[in-house]
Amino acid sequence: MNIGFLHPGAMGISLAVSAQATGHQAFWLPEGRSEETRARAATHNLSELDSLADFCETCDIIISVCPPHAAVKVAHQTLEFSFKGIYADVNAISPEKTKSIHQLMTSKDIEFVDGGIIGGPAWEAKNTWLYLAGQKAAEVAACFHGGLLETELMGPEIGKASAIKMSFAAYTKGSTALLCAIMAAADEMGVRQDLEKQWSRNGSDFTERTHNRLQRVTAKAWRFSGEMEEIAATLKSAGQPQGFHLAAGEIFHRISKFKGADSIPSVEDVLEALKHDSKI
Amino acid sequence: MNIGFLHPGAMGISLAVSAQATGHQAFWLPEGRSEETRARAATHNLSELDSLADFCETCDIIISVCPPHAAVKVAHQTLEFSFKGIYADVNAISPEKTKSIHQLMTSKDIEFVDGGIIGGPAWEAKNTWLYLAGQKAAEVAACFHGGLLETELMGPEIGKASAIKMSFAAYTKGSTALLCAIMAAADEMGVRQDLEKQWSRNGSDFTERTHNRLQRVTAKAWRFSGEMEEIAATLKSAGQPQGFHLAAGEIFHRISKFKGADSIPSVEDVLEALKHDSKI
Repeated sequence: MNIGFLHPGAMGISLAVSAQATGHQAFWLPEGRSEETRARAATHNLSELDSLADFCETCDIIISVCPPHAAVKVAHQTLEFSFKGIYADVNAISPEKTKSIHQLMTSKDIEFVDGGIIGGPAWEAKNTWLYLAGQKAAEVAACFHGGLLETELMGPEIGKASAIKMSFAAYTKGSTALLCAIMAAADEMGVRQDLEKQWSRNGSDFTERTHNRLQRVTAKAWRFSGEMEEIAATLKSAGQPQGFHLAAGEIFHRISKFKGADSIPSVEDVLEALKHDSKI
Repeated sequence: MNIGFLHPGAMGISLAVSAQATGHQAFWLPEGRSEETRARAATHNLSELDSLADFCETCDIIISVCPPHAAVKVAHQTLEFSFKGIYADVNAISPEKTKSIHQLMTSKDIEFVDGGIIGGPAWEAKNTWLYLAGQKAAEVAACFHGGLLETELMGPEIGKASAIKMSFAAYTKGSTALLCAIMAAADEMGVRQDLEKQWSRNGSDFTERTHNRLQRVTAKAWRFSGEMEEIAATLKSAGQPQGFHLAAGEIFHRISKFKGADSIPSVEDVLEALKHDSKI
């Protein structure tokens, strides 16, 4: 089958490679994408197409894999052409937003699958899970069975795959943002060293792990900001407070400037960025 | 010396016992306190006094150890009498609130010490730390040197002990509240089992630890709600978002009804309580 990816970043490329390993051809659309993405696609032999019109003609299944804020736009763009296959949105968006894209697709008789990815890019086994929900979920899962991506079927109900993705990321990313805020506050109040000493009592490596989390998240913070808004909306719809993740979004916004940085910033650089922002 | 405790709960009693072990006499004021507290004070041989007037006359040092929302009230009540010793506020309150109590005390020529306690009641060594700041911090620390309570001096600046207490609790209690919200949302969305399965991958005991945290926090949630407001104010003053801990306060408010429960509630009971509240 012909599987199209809109628009593969580090994660999307690894999905495309899993589809190739299963015996499918993986397509992408280079127009408007970065040099880094082009190089990645070339390295992994993704097939280029020149226009979204061609893409919609060629592909049997389209996988939307992009930053959360772009998910609805990508869906609308696809609807402008006569796509007749399965459209799978595997982005980090709320179940409600997923359902709205489902409705869009259904209005044009396009089969829709809800997806959510947990883990980093799928370059090793048992490390990355694609959760899938919807009537055609098994068909999308079958695209990847020969690769390193793990798949999990969540039944026919659209929203379930997004729900588990949001729930899982709510803690991993929410707690990282919380630590960022606490470290910056402790530093501002002049008690960071004392806090780190307390965290290190009884031989704990909590301080080192926290430093590592602050430093490593900087490369991805630019897109986590939008994801936190999706998680906030998800918790609100489920009757829980949205404040944790609105605050987390603000934190990731403050450190979004590290996108594409040449090297991993120091803890001090991260704290400096966390302390300077116009909004609170 | 005569050390007075206003108003010892589980933590305060353990402080009083550390003071006794150091050779001091520990006083308390039974008026208006619960049967449980009276039984605890009797077990540990605290000395009763009949009135706050007597208390202020008798004690060389007063330790205010009470729920956060009561800290200012206890300070004002003490000022109505002619106390002439050292007043140490060791409560979980923001540095700003601590400074306001400091000003109250200074206006009556009472020496003030800022304190913050990290850890549970001090019934074993290396488990509970009393951080102290202010000109007389060392004198308050000396009250406990013969007991199981560890003390740490933070220098003369009022607010530093509260700052580290707030920073430390911001993560331990904030992340517990975050997990409560996520578990309740996942349950509401019908993906809790899937989330717990994902958390348990690769042999992790994260699900068991999370269940344990949800269940154990219920007994203390009634006073954590106010502490979260103090932490939110602390982060805001330090230039960070307050949303994490306002949300955490809401979460603890929802499960505050478990105060004094005869047994530890089931995970299902905790989730049920988390789902029902008038405010969001």
